[in-house]
Amino acid sequence: MDIKEKALKKHYDWNGKIEVISRAPLRTREDLSLAYTPGVAEPCLVIAQDENKAYELTRKNNLVAVITDGTAVLGLGDIGPSAAMPVMEGKCALFKAFADVDAFPICVDSKDTDTIVETIANISKSFGGINLEDIAAPRCFEIEAKLKQRCDIPVFHDDQHGTAIVVAAALINALKVTGKKASEIKVVVNGAGAAGIAISKLLLQLQLGELILCDKEGAIYEGAPWLNPAQAEMALVTNPERRQGALQEVIRGADVFVGVSRPGLLTAEMVASMNCGIVFAMANPTPEIMPDEAKRGGAAVVGTGRSDFPNQINNVLAFPGIFKGALQVRARDITEGMKVAAAYAIAAMVPSEQLNAEMILPNPLDPKVAQGVAEAVAQQAVREGIARVSQPQKGL
Amino acid sequence: MDIKEKALKKHYDWNGKIEVISRAPLRTREDLSLAYTPGVAEPCLVIAQDENKAYELTRKNNLVAVITDGTAVLGLGDIGPSAAMPVMEGKCALFKAFADVDAFPICVDSKDTDTIVETIANISKSFGGINLEDIAAPRCFEIEAKLKQRCDIPVFHDDQHGTAIVVAAALINALKVTGKKASEIKVVVNGAGAAGIAISKLLLQLQLGELILCDKEGAIYEGAPWLNPAQAEMALVTNPERRQGALQEVIRGADVFVGVSRPGLLTAEMVASMNCGIVFAMANPTPEIMPDEAKRGGAAVVGTGRSDFPNQINNVLAFPGIFKGALQVRARDITEGMKVAAAYAIAAMVPSEQLNAEMILPNPLDPKVAQGVAEAVAQQAVREGIARVSQPQKGL
Repeated sequence: MDIKEKALKKHYDWNGKIEVISRAPLRTREDLSLAYTPGVAEPCLVIAQDENKAYELTRKNNLVAVITDGTAVLGLGDIGPSAAMPVMEGKCALFKAFADVDAFPICVDSKDTDTIVETIANISKSFGGINLEDIAAPRCFEIEAKLKQRCDIPVFHDDQHGTAIVVAAALINALKVTGKKASEIKVVVNGAGAAGIAISKLLLQLQLGELILCDKEGAIYEGAPWLNPAQAEMALVTNPERRQGALQEVIRGADVFVGVSRPGLLTAEMVASMNCGIVFAMANPTPEIMPDEAKRGGAAVVGTGRSDFPNQINNVLAFPGIFKGALQVRARDITEGMKVAAAYAIAAMVPSEQLNAEMILPNPLDPKVAQGVAEAVAQQAVREGIARVSQPQKGL
Repeated sequence: MDIKEKALKKHYDWNGKIEVISRAPLRTREDLSLAYTPGVAEPCLVIAQDENKAYELTRKNNLVAVITDGTAVLGLGDIGPSAAMPVMEGKCALFKAFADVDAFPICVDSKDTDTIVETIANISKSFGGINLEDIAAPRCFEIEAKLKQRCDIPVFHDDQHGTAIVVAAALINALKVTGKKASEIKVVVNGAGAAGIAISKLLLQLQLGELILCDKEGAIYEGAPWLNPAQAEMALVTNPERRQGALQEVIRGADVFVGVSRPGLLTAEMVASMNCGIVFAMANPTPEIMPDEAKRGGAAVVGTGRSDFPNQINNVLAFPGIFKGALQVRARDITEGMKVAAAYAIAAMVPSEQLNAEMILPNPLDPKVAQGVAEAVAQQAVREGIARVSQPQKGL
């Protein structure tokens, strides 16, 4: 049985991948009178007096909503809200397995930006954080931005920021391996959709020498007539020399290639034209260039999105720990600073004696990663003054 | 420590009463590739082809949303969405403990009927059923009615219908104990809010001799100038002789008193004026009449909402089994017929040899009750043609 058949069979066996259990015993009459009526009136009254007590008296302290509209599910596109649910449930299962964060999957049955924002904002008090997932661009930018304004809990579109954080972590360690300084390097990010733009924004926080964002039409530069609004905004902060031309031209002399585009776009010849060949080829399931081909072109470090090659750039390294850290200090937001802190924490999880070109990222299955990320994120949230408490809280 | 202090302390200890766990193992790389990418694409594609497959491939088959707007929480009134969450979590814990149904608590941060309806409808595809809770009247009627039209899954306002079902069950057995026939009896329901109206509607399904609904102004009759729209509707199907007057007048000669009103409204003298004294006094925490006082007036059977007296009329006898039954056959709705079937099933859970005036209802802690109710509800759903499958499904 191949992986597809086996996965389908398992899904029929599981009958759903999440389950909601009780943390309170409910065997005796007294149990009922404590967890439910009449005793339950007491915590209600305490929260009615001080809404922050919801973090202590309900599961808000450890609870994330994983929400989609089903418009950009994996590589399958707009398959609708119900069909997106296996992915959302899987994500929730990962949250629990890797960070002991309770996550609950919700699909919103609308494609209207304002309706989606309104719906999510209306239910947001039930949660300590909101993880947006598989929402198509450019709608995903507006939804996230509006929700960040409306809600006083973290809102995080993982397809954008989770990927960006792991790419940043990979780059931090790739620079160590190659002996390069961030301020000296030139990075080309190929694919100017939601992920590419988020990656570029976060990499800019690392004080790089230069970053050029490319799309199908070539390098994005200020004034290019074919830019969408999100790309036009990026043109203001990238490509200061306003270089034009196709990928094969701008990649020449670059140190880093980051691909979130399509299979086969990068050739061994293009890698050979680079200065320092750090290649992160994340098109799924087939990368922009296969690792052996990249190495034939002289690549120094190669990462992909796949688990069957070294250096898998896998979001699971980021999102469980990020939300855990944010929840532990009851953060109001997940900021750029917290994302950068997460990237450095992920990079630091590879011990320096093990760090090499084939191992720039920790094992996604290592449970210590989420803990390390959580600590860094929680500390940064406190430092930036967006945490409701100054120490990680008990029971989490 | 009294129950209030103890309940509050327990809530701080629990740190939330629900938790979301994974039903899929996530220890190895293969586990991840089956439960998440790339394997998870397969169940997504199957559901994209046939939305009904969501009942087999996601947790929709066993998942209920417990939703409130926080406007009528217990006897505390409008304490807001966050403060209502301990009750919602408690309800979810009861669903799991008594029927192995997964239930998830959500508060909607709005008091606008259409906004609440829109919000719930937009997220309804994530669930197999919706349990509305602690929403103030008259808003609760409109919200439930509109959601029933919008959603193709059961929508059930437990404060109305759960109570009604258990009262109906209690009445079915009280008639057995007193040797009365339903068609011969006269029932007075005191309190014409959401619960009183729902109880009256369901009792009418039992083919009673006569039913009069009373409110503060007295008996509700067709044409009374002080009726609200919901009461005016009830006036058309109750009190055929258009009797007028206060409770103490219409109770005279009645067989059954059902109180969802206020403490102390029923006196021993009023009970003495009844024909057959079946008294269900459910005002909380102090009943319309205390059981010993009712017996002094000659009551034949007395039930209250309290666990420290015999015959506790407790919703937990109904809602877990009702939703379990509806979910097992993937019902599109919970109908009046299913509610009546649930009432008869609850009544039948008291073995005839144990049935007496002090035991007209099963023990709320008996786990067999939900199973019995579920079977009856599932069968009725199939009979009425609103089930998506003709047999209860596996894994539930």
